[in-house]
Amino acid sequence: MSEQISDSHHEILDAAAKCFMKLGVNAASVDDIAHSLGSTKGRIYHHFASRGALLGAVRLQAPEFTRRAVAPVMDDNLSPSQNFHNMALTHIAAVFETLPYHKVVLQHYTGLEGKSATESDRAMEARIRDAKRGYEDLFRSVIHAGMQSGEFRCQNLSVTLHSVLILLNAPVFWYSPRPDEPQGFTAQVARQLADMGLAALI
Amino acid sequence: MSEQISDSHHEILDAAAKCFMKLGVNAASVDDIAHSLGSTKGRIYHHFASRGALLGAVRLQAPEFTRRAVAPVMDDNLSPSQNFHNMALTHIAAVFETLPYHKVVLQHYTGLEGKSATESDRAMEARIRDAKRGYEDLFRSVIHAGMQSGEFRCQNLSVTLHSVLILLNAPVFWYSPRPDEPQGFTAQVARQLADMGLAALI
Repeated sequence: MSEQISDSHHEILDAAAKCFMKLGVNAASVDDIAHSLGSTKGRIYHHFASRGALLGAVRLQAPEFTRRAVAPVMDDNLSPSQNFHNMALTHIAAVFETLPYHKVVLQHYTGLEGKSATESDRAMEARIRDAKRGYEDLFRSVIHAGMQSGEFRCQNLSVTLHSVLILLNAPVFWYSPRPDEPQGFTAQVARQLADMGLAALI
Repeated sequence: MSEQISDSHHEILDAAAKCFMKLGVNAASVDDIAHSLGSTKGRIYHHFASRGALLGAVRLQAPEFTRRAVAPVMDDNLSPSQNFHNMALTHIAAVFETLPYHKVVLQHYTGLEGKSATESDRAMEARIRDAKRGYEDLFRSVIHAGMQSGEFRCQNLSVTLHSVLILLNAPVFWYSPRPDEPQGFTAQVARQLADMGLAALI
């Protein structure tokens, strides 16, 4: 039973991520999401209290997807370079697999003066911020280790971290799947960006 | 007289860029912009036919600012590495100087399924796209030259171009001026990012 609920929950999240991506986080309605599922609004409201709660859940899920993929490949026995390269490859592959979620997050990267009206809105913003920071800290630790060991150039750590993560996230901006895409294209992009990211650190 | 009109035009554009940045491209109204100028809506409508025209003008101006700064520093007598590094430094400095415009552009990087209703909307989108591409082509040409000469790694040119430009634009995401910012911080960031961008190409 709980598995069924969980499946339904994730099915709704996936549909919501796609609708928010396509129509915009301001424009997509619960009606649009229900329509794309061929379902009723009631089914959605059974899982999520409001449109805002659903959007928050999509944004919270994005760093969770990448964290779950990247954390297990981290290995302190590897050099920071090798460690970073593995993490970067894994990160980019995870982003391609869950692209709509990351495109939705992108729509919140704009530094708007947010007016989080309710306490629960503010609590959700804090959870999203913590999840994002917690994930970024995985990369912060390996970049820091590389600077300490002298493998990576010593430069402002936060500037390095955020800039290199934006480089690894570049496909979120310009990539959309295309039917005529060469086979293995996303894997090739992942390798190229992991190489570029590592080169930018050294 | 035409200079006066032009000054007023640019003053309105600056105010609009700041309002769109702070309040969001969907939320900021002509009223908000007029209020921030201590002026009437009539003055704005004297220069711009609509809120949409004003937003389009802000987005069109962003690549114009960077193009005007970067084109003059390009020098075919320099090596592609030196040429790229100069262009990157100049680009980042121009972005810091006209940050609100670039933060507004960022809000349009999301790949929404746009519904450009009118012919003039579509014409404006085409002008913005052309301005952006025309500017990017400056970097495309120098990266291409570097790959041809063997100075830069040979890899997918479009992936390289768009990813390295996103790296150079990283401050648009995470930077906002702060009163307690160390002196020379933006210049230091520009050097670091130009170095990282060049390293990512080699």
